[in-house]
Amino acid sequence: MLHPRSIAIVGATPARNKLNGRPLHFLRRDGYPGAIWPVNPRYADIDGLKCYPDIAALPGAPDMAIIAVAAARAEETIAALGAKGCPVAVLFSSGFGELGAEGKALERSLIATARASDVRICGPNTLGLVSAFDRAPATFSQYADIPPLAGPVGFASQSGAFGTGISALARSRGLGFGYFVSTGNTADITPVEVLREMLEDDRIKVLAGYLEGLADGFALIALASEALDRGKPLVITKVGRSPAGAKAAASHTGSLAGEDVVFDWVARQAGIIRARNEEHMLDVLSALVCNHAPEGDGLAIITQSGGAGVLMADRAEEIGLSVPTMHDETRGALAGVLPDYGATANPIDVTGQFLADPRILAESVRIALDDPRVHVCVIWLQLMHRYADSLVGLFHDIKRTVTKPFVVCWIEAPEKARLELMAAGICVIGATERAVDAAAGLVAWGNAARRHREEKPAASASTVELVPPTSDIRPVPSLQALAMLQSAGLAAVDTRPARTAEEAARLAAALGFPVALKIESADILHKTEVGGVALDLGDADAVRKAFEAVTASARSHMPAAKFDGVLVQKMARPGAELVLGLRRDPVFGHVVMVGLGGIFVEVLKDVAFAQVPVAPGHALRMLHGLRGRAILDGARGQPPVDYQVLAAAITALSELAIRHPEIEDLDLNPVFAGPGGVVAVDWLMRVRSGGGDD
Amino acid sequence: MLHPRSIAIVGATPARNKLNGRPLHFLRRDGYPGAIWPVNPRYADIDGLKCYPDIAALPGAPDMAIIAVAAARAEETIAALGAKGCPVAVLFSSGFGELGAEGKALERSLIATARASDVRICGPNTLGLVSAFDRAPATFSQYADIPPLAGPVGFASQSGAFGTGISALARSRGLGFGYFVSTGNTADITPVEVLREMLEDDRIKVLAGYLEGLADGFALIALASEALDRGKPLVITKVGRSPAGAKAAASHTGSLAGEDVVFDWVARQAGIIRARNEEHMLDVLSALVCNHAPEGDGLAIITQSGGAGVLMADRAEEIGLSVPTMHDETRGALAGVLPDYGATANPIDVTGQFLADPRILAESVRIALDDPRVHVCVIWLQLMHRYADSLVGLFHDIKRTVTKPFVVCWIEAPEKARLELMAAGICVIGATERAVDAAAGLVAWGNAARRHREEKPAASASTVELVPPTSDIRPVPSLQALAMLQSAGLAAVDTRPARTAEEAARLAAALGFPVALKIESADILHKTEVGGVALDLGDADAVRKAFEAVTASARSHMPAAKFDGVLVQKMARPGAELVLGLRRDPVFGHVVMVGLGGIFVEVLKDVAFAQVPVAPGHALRMLHGLRGRAILDGARGQPPVDYQVLAAAITALSELAIRHPEIEDLDLNPVFAGPGGVVAVDWLMRVRSGGGDD
Repeated sequence: MLHPRSIAIVGATPARNKLNGRPLHFLRRDGYPGAIWPVNPRYADIDGLKCYPDIAALPGAPDMAIIAVAAARAEETIAALGAKGCPVAVLFSSGFGELGAEGKALERSLIATARASDVRICGPNTLGLVSAFDRAPATFSQYADIPPLAGPVGFASQSGAFGTGISALARSRGLGFGYFVSTGNTADITPVEVLREMLEDDRIKVLAGYLEGLADGFALIALASEALDRGKPLVITKVGRSPAGAKAAASHTGSLAGEDVVFDWVARQAGIIRARNEEHMLDVLSALVCNHAPEGDGLAIITQSGGAGVLMADRAEEIGLSVPTMHDETRGALAGVLPDYGATANPIDVTGQFLADPRILAESVRIALDDPRVHVCVIWLQLMHRYADSLVGLFHDIKRTVTKPFVVCWIEAPEKARLELMAAGICVIGATERAVDAAAGLVAWGNAARRHREEKPAASASTVELVPPTSDIRPVPSLQALAMLQSAGLAAVDTRPARTAEEAARLAAALGFPVALKIESADILHKTEVGGVALDLGDADAVRKAFEAVTASARSHMPAAKFDGVLVQKMARPGAELVLGLRRDPVFGHVVMVGLGGIFVEVLKDVAFAQVPVAPGHALRMLHGLRGRAILDGARGQPPVDYQVLAAAITALSELAIRHPEIEDLDLNPVFAGPGGVVAVDWLMRVRSGGGDD
Repeated sequence: MLHPRSIAIVGATPARNKLNGRPLHFLRRDGYPGAIWPVNPRYADIDGLKCYPDIAALPGAPDMAIIAVAAARAEETIAALGAKGCPVAVLFSSGFGELGAEGKALERSLIATARASDVRICGPNTLGLVSAFDRAPATFSQYADIPPLAGPVGFASQSGAFGTGISALARSRGLGFGYFVSTGNTADITPVEVLREMLEDDRIKVLAGYLEGLADGFALIALASEALDRGKPLVITKVGRSPAGAKAAASHTGSLAGEDVVFDWVARQAGIIRARNEEHMLDVLSALVCNHAPEGDGLAIITQSGGAGVLMADRAEEIGLSVPTMHDETRGALAGVLPDYGATANPIDVTGQFLADPRILAESVRIALDDPRVHVCVIWLQLMHRYADSLVGLFHDIKRTVTKPFVVCWIEAPEKARLELMAAGICVIGATERAVDAAAGLVAWGNAARRHREEKPAASASTVELVPPTSDIRPVPSLQALAMLQSAGLAAVDTRPARTAEEAARLAAALGFPVALKIESADILHKTEVGGVALDLGDADAVRKAFEAVTASARSHMPAAKFDGVLVQKMARPGAELVLGLRRDPVFGHVVMVGLGGIFVEVLKDVAFAQVPVAPGHALRMLHGLRGRAILDGARGQPPVDYQVLAAAITALSELAIRHPEIEDLDLNPVFAGPGGVVAVDWLMRVRSGGGDD
């Protein structure tokens, strides 16, 4: 699809201002080197180009067809293309899935025909694609009103209008998109498939995707992994971050979306760089195409304005970049270059003096980047229209002589200078905080690449596939679930079953007081709610009384339930309270979750996720990424937890999910973690029927 | 200073590319209508304008003087200007406070001379000011390389370079700055003073300030209040948000800054709109100059791209705007206008069809803004170069026919259309999330204006002044502090002093068990740390033992302390744990703080502040603004707190601070709040010596 040697345009017209006339005009304007075959019985030729009455009359099978006919005729057109041997059709026609239930049915029928005809479909309701290297603007998008700028970014978008805006903004900043593909309703070809094809092209250095929903998370993760293998960053903007946005997205795309927080964590796990919005995406892309990956997160800020320096330091701290104070040696070297009132610590203030002596700026950048604590640098300046040419020369010099990445933040830069710098592979951003965000994008990519290179992968590969939701789910009895947890290497407090009050009292004495009693019944999921739990029982008598009480209470709440006595547990609360668990995500399959317990999970939703399998390094990052991490480090006089042991519990859950694909969900809540270890106090496992009894 | 009828330029030169030559060139180029008096013994005239050998030779007292001489000669120049009767000097000269201790001494001496000479100083180290209405670019800033664009924004900046960038960016978007004043080192005239003068000008509709530090918070708050009285929004960007940024700001400006979190809360309390960075500032300013204040926070999103609509809904939710689902009647009316595949709920997707029929867009906006749940609207579109003129006409129509405010988000808009719209008072923003942020700026202003108009002010006005820090601070004995709290209307748990174990046991029995015992000593601030607290004492015997234990432990920890027996307290923990208190902020004087207790305050720093006096409405907003607010609403099965009673405790603290200006700080920690009330369990009050014994 990206490199067609011939393009048929079904429904072509000479009118350049019409949807079905524009691709032909664009292709000829840009000198598309392949064959163009207009198809329309109403014309013998269009602008001197032979026009064919129907698909059968074409001189051969086109590599690609654009279909610009009414929705009602789309299906027969696809069948005809299939008969001719055309492998892929770009379907401009609208009037399908975007029109509700009726349109969706039409779309399903269309795709069935396409499958039967062996034609892949881009669309329907797409505005097409631009293959800029091949001078093939097979689109009616306004983006192609001006000839596209070829370049090292491959871009796939689920939104036509937004994709057009992003591509046009990129061109205005001198950032070339080698490909821009709009997948429209995404009924067949997906943005992920398209990006995978772009990945093969050596001219493409960075991949960018705009997503509104995601059906198959595994394909995205596989793409991310291949992109890492090839050293090409993958930048994704996915809308629907908030509940309101997710609702709007679902109504717009009709797709069932997984939770955004899961997407966010899993994307990070996979080394995907997530961009918030179109500006953020373009800023990060600009930085990535101009720079290699930094080796750490130390940011040097070099500025002609102290105030801008402060703002950048603020932003760096907010987004987790370090702004290290320069090494004494570095400061000495800077002091030798800067005027007296310059600042050398970081931010480095070169003051307005650098205009009198441009060497000040170039030397400061070189010195700062030589500091071992610095891995990337932002250089801030504004206006300077009178000095634009000499500044462009200066940045060329810097680019030639430094080896670490840098971003130029030039406020209200002259357009010519801006474009010259981008053309020379020097990233220019026009806003202060955005420049820091772009540097952070570089750091994120550096981290992802380094982890991919250096870190140990997960012990086992996942074999879970996406399965449709089912209601045929049943809880696993507590002791059986416990055995499964233990065989995966997860620790729980000492737990024994008892059928009678006497047995319970005896077991409690053996375990050591105080103990807890919990009613055991496969029919009761939430034991506390039926009065089925008694805590802090200090002696045998208390245990006996509690046995009667929890049994009676549970029976009165749920007379029909089948009871299996009680569980006797040693009370044990050694440290920080957490929740751990497994979920079956509709997009990513099994995911492990970990959060801080109690108020943190209930009120703050402070939970981290990872797709199974979870590598040890990522398990640690999940813990480090919790907002209430200070709890784990030992807030309020508690000893710190053992991060390695806690991370091991996360990878153990991952292994458990791999061994037991039937697990639907698992809650370990609470789990207590201290310096010595991690123990689950309560757990609830549910499986899809037919499994779980191994 | 803003309207000089004559300007002397001391150190003027004919060289247009020099700092001391540029103002003369700019003033003449723009046709400054007042008198220009160059002063320089080296020239008889400059470009045909008479040049004076010295200040004494001037034909009269200039309304303003620009001083562009070496730092060493600045002081004598000021004295000469004073002798001549010049009231204000704009001091370009650098080499003062920005150079460290020596420069600071020079600056102090300079300001002393200026005071003695009755000359106000703007600077030193300023790049001057632009009074665009008067065609008076009294500056050497690059901003004036192109003639300034006059308009309804008054802007004062502590940073010259950043201020230049902001002003130039504003001009590029067609946003006129009536004034741009750089206050340089801010040794005398402050941005707040300058803004206060701009406020008087009827042509100025919105004030904007860029601050790096703030010495006198009271002046800023007074300005904000006057601005509200006059219906003019005040937008402030203050850098130093993060610890790293604050450190950089302190080293850059040398000023002692208060905590940013206090600034943030107090600014909100005062109705100031805080902008994060230069783009955010300009976006909000653009929205404010083009619109009146909305009457609520309901946002309608009208878009030609479903994806952009989702992104805007995401952003709205993140920043606390509501995106209400349209009323059924509204949806019906929209359905009558939109194509079948348009969306009517909100976001409203007008689809690409609006180009075929522009009425679709105009009607959709009108219908959406008619919905009573909608108070402001963002209209999103992209490119449309071929339809630019008709779209401009369409927006003019909309502007004429709607009464609620709206913001146009036009991605990659043609420059001409963009500038035409801004000139017509129609706000255009070029990025998706930023358009929502601009709408949020309007909502913030609407809220501030409404509160100013409608809400009850605080009971008493504050009389506290900023006083220098002192180390002469002493704790107030617990019972005395308790009496002060109670007389202000704050409740505490029942607390009695006991000198002996027997007395303690007797009091405990009277209060009712369980009780707590706390050692009482003016020398011991942190009772727990010396083992001076015993909790949950269930009977008289436990109280007796505890009396001996806490006394012995405290004595062994602090043998030199003077002891006053113990306090016996009824144990009472009815609900949510909070901390309340008073602080003396270096910038804003007494501030009240409230936060959620325990982990929330320790780990998450979830604390709200307000300057004294605190109005009842603002006390409620402090509570609503806590991130862990769900705790107050009754998370984890707790009953909800009584917000009114809790807010009353906050205003009571405010009253306490007004009655007792000697209070240095006060911690009520913990405080328990439930449906029935609020009680403090522990408190620590410190006062400046000489007070507190009323």
